[in-house]
Amino acid sequence: MATINDNYLKLKAGYLFPEIARRVNAFAIANPNAPIIKLGIGDVTEPLPQACRTAMKTAVEEMGDRATFKGYGPEQGYGWLREKIAAQDFQKRGCEIDASEIFVSDGAKCDTGNILDIFGKDNTIAVTDPVYPVYVDTNVMAGNTGTANDGGKYGGLVYMPITAENDFTAEIPTEKVDLIYLCFPNNPTGATASKSHLKAWVDYAKANDSIIFFDAAYEAFITDADLPHSIYEIEGARDCAIEFRSFSKNAGFTGTRCAYTVVPKTLTAASADGSDVELWKLWNRRQSTKFNGVSYIVQRGAEAVYSDEGQAQIAQLVGFYLENAKIICDRLTAAGLSVYGGVNAPYVWVKTPNGLTSWDFFDKLLQAANVVGTPGSGFGAAGEGYFRISAFNSRDNVEEAMKRIGDTFKG
Amino acid sequence: MATINDNYLKLKAGYLFPEIARRVNAFAIANPNAPIIKLGIGDVTEPLPQACRTAMKTAVEEMGDRATFKGYGPEQGYGWLREKIAAQDFQKRGCEIDASEIFVSDGAKCDTGNILDIFGKDNTIAVTDPVYPVYVDTNVMAGNTGTANDGGKYGGLVYMPITAENDFTAEIPTEKVDLIYLCFPNNPTGATASKSHLKAWVDYAKANDSIIFFDAAYEAFITDADLPHSIYEIEGARDCAIEFRSFSKNAGFTGTRCAYTVVPKTLTAASADGSDVELWKLWNRRQSTKFNGVSYIVQRGAEAVYSDEGQAQIAQLVGFYLENAKIICDRLTAAGLSVYGGVNAPYVWVKTPNGLTSWDFFDKLLQAANVVGTPGSGFGAAGEGYFRISAFNSRDNVEEAMKRIGDTFKG
Repeated sequence: MATINDNYLKLKAGYLFPEIARRVNAFAIANPNAPIIKLGIGDVTEPLPQACRTAMKTAVEEMGDRATFKGYGPEQGYGWLREKIAAQDFQKRGCEIDASEIFVSDGAKCDTGNILDIFGKDNTIAVTDPVYPVYVDTNVMAGNTGTANDGGKYGGLVYMPITAENDFTAEIPTEKVDLIYLCFPNNPTGATASKSHLKAWVDYAKANDSIIFFDAAYEAFITDADLPHSIYEIEGARDCAIEFRSFSKNAGFTGTRCAYTVVPKTLTAASADGSDVELWKLWNRRQSTKFNGVSYIVQRGAEAVYSDEGQAQIAQLVGFYLENAKIICDRLTAAGLSVYGGVNAPYVWVKTPNGLTSWDFFDKLLQAANVVGTPGSGFGAAGEGYFRISAFNSRDNVEEAMKRIGDTFKG
Repeated sequence: MATINDNYLKLKAGYLFPEIARRVNAFAIANPNAPIIKLGIGDVTEPLPQACRTAMKTAVEEMGDRATFKGYGPEQGYGWLREKIAAQDFQKRGCEIDASEIFVSDGAKCDTGNILDIFGKDNTIAVTDPVYPVYVDTNVMAGNTGTANDGGKYGGLVYMPITAENDFTAEIPTEKVDLIYLCFPNNPTGATASKSHLKAWVDYAKANDSIIFFDAAYEAFITDADLPHSIYEIEGARDCAIEFRSFSKNAGFTGTRCAYTVVPKTLTAASADGSDVELWKLWNRRQSTKFNGVSYIVQRGAEAVYSDEGQAQIAQLVGFYLENAKIICDRLTAAGLSVYGGVNAPYVWVKTPNGLTSWDFFDKLLQAANVVGTPGSGFGAAGEGYFRISAFNSRDNVEEAMKRIGDTFKG
């Protein structure tokens, strides 16, 4: 008799965003004329950069001629894309990352889940609280946790609270952890990490032979010259960190699908007999066996991000969303709400007023202002009493949503 | 200290195709003027159908206007694509498959590996020998096997030989197995399965509460009206089979990347407490959490396969490769070699002459004829003494390669 992976039965309810979609749909059916504005899921709304579209059209044409047709590409991504990524995203910032250490993929969400394939089941795993739910759920599925308690916390995971009280900066653990998920600029709180904060993590990881999973999907939103864009700007990070990047938020690729993961060749972890094994080799084998590369057409689109034209266009896109974030911060503050993030980040993290729970605030905003955001408690127990508002929308929608929220909280 | 997944250390040498690439590269460096023709890896060579290219260009244009821009799509694929797949690939053939049971993905290779995520570690797993290496390697990585013996067989797997002696048809096991990988038309042997053969498997699976993983990536090559294209043409298969399909070989999408997996809602497997759990729910949760859907642009290309124009164009493509296969079969037979497959399939399975091993024959063909094929032993111990030749190439290359092989074996 075939058996299932019982770890799936430990997962609590639905993934956060399907639950939001369910409530919004129910509301929309009951109120078919409500002019709902969605600032919930962190999905981009503005057109794909012209440079990317032009490159993809050319690539489609190449597919029409057997002389330029492309079949299977390298599972790791084409060399011309990996070279540009290494040069412009890393070497230009002084990070010693080689093109062979870049693995192009179809999404950072996929990669942050799949990376667990190459690690053992006996690692102690630390996540911030609140946290991007995929980190937790993929560990539950992989059997790296116990069951969840009533507060939604899974046994076996080390939760590191990040709240206004500690300035949304996780304290370095006193206990020993093996795998550490960090995300800066942070989803969901919009917090950023200074070089000295990341250095403390790298020092901890090196001292404890831990591996840091550094999710830098939002690095493009950093405007402060002092903030690091990559963990490899910190000395020693090549020996303890894997970094995840995406074209989703800088170039608007959420529906086009391209991302990459950096696995330095200097990175090792222990096998059962205590010997050091290169993680690059394991990830390369994983990707070669369970993945077949990203669409040639899409990789050409991603490559265009690195052209002068592409760089100018993504700077404009990012600037547009950052201006949205500033408007959100200003208006919510004027409405008497406490806000965090929204600077060097596309997310604004709002303290719910009057002791409302996150879901109560969600329902109130939906009912009274027809605005959809994301309940902080959906990102973890310490997110209770907070609410995430995304800056990914048109200017008109952001202005209108802020006007309505202002009206709601004026009374 | 972070630890690795030690199961990766059980993997034998490199994946087959990288090893071939290594030998071919070494030969090419030593013989820079050798006119190498590659009939090894099963990669398509002819242009992408016009219908697909037109649809993708339109989709790229839509991405340039915020009114038609697409961000995150459904992780399971867009409804318009799933509906067409269900209607044309299944319902038209009398298979009771609903659009909601179709999960669009970026590759059948990915899906046949990832599917193991939702199954338990205590299943007994059966594969044919020879077999597509990904089925075996992903089970090794997942910890479902022991170590490999000198012959390359992994402990804990049930190997079902398919050779000329049993007409390349695996015998139904006498022991009890829980998960069974079947691939028809077969990679690598080019063998096909009759309805009665598949019925015997479905009956076995239903009697033993087993699940069949049915890889139908090559179904488009079936021209014989009596052969089933889908396992769901067999009564009862909805209760015991998951089917994998791909646009790689019918529409030339190896570099464009689109595929799909069918998980019927009637399919269950047992949880640890003995209750039945719907596999559809688990796979849906897996894909929602660890995947973010296929590029909108690519899905529009796949949808165009189902237009009248697209259907005519893929019929022409498939017919072209089948004619190549016929030429290969005819010429090799004329050269005194024994060949199998190549009818209703794009692969020709050759018995190596004069007791040569598969790799000896590989080296001989490379040296003497500058033709690259795939050693049968790379697909499993029972593939020793066989050799796979792929029909995926231009007519000129196929003609020239066959001429050279003919000359080599004439003497």
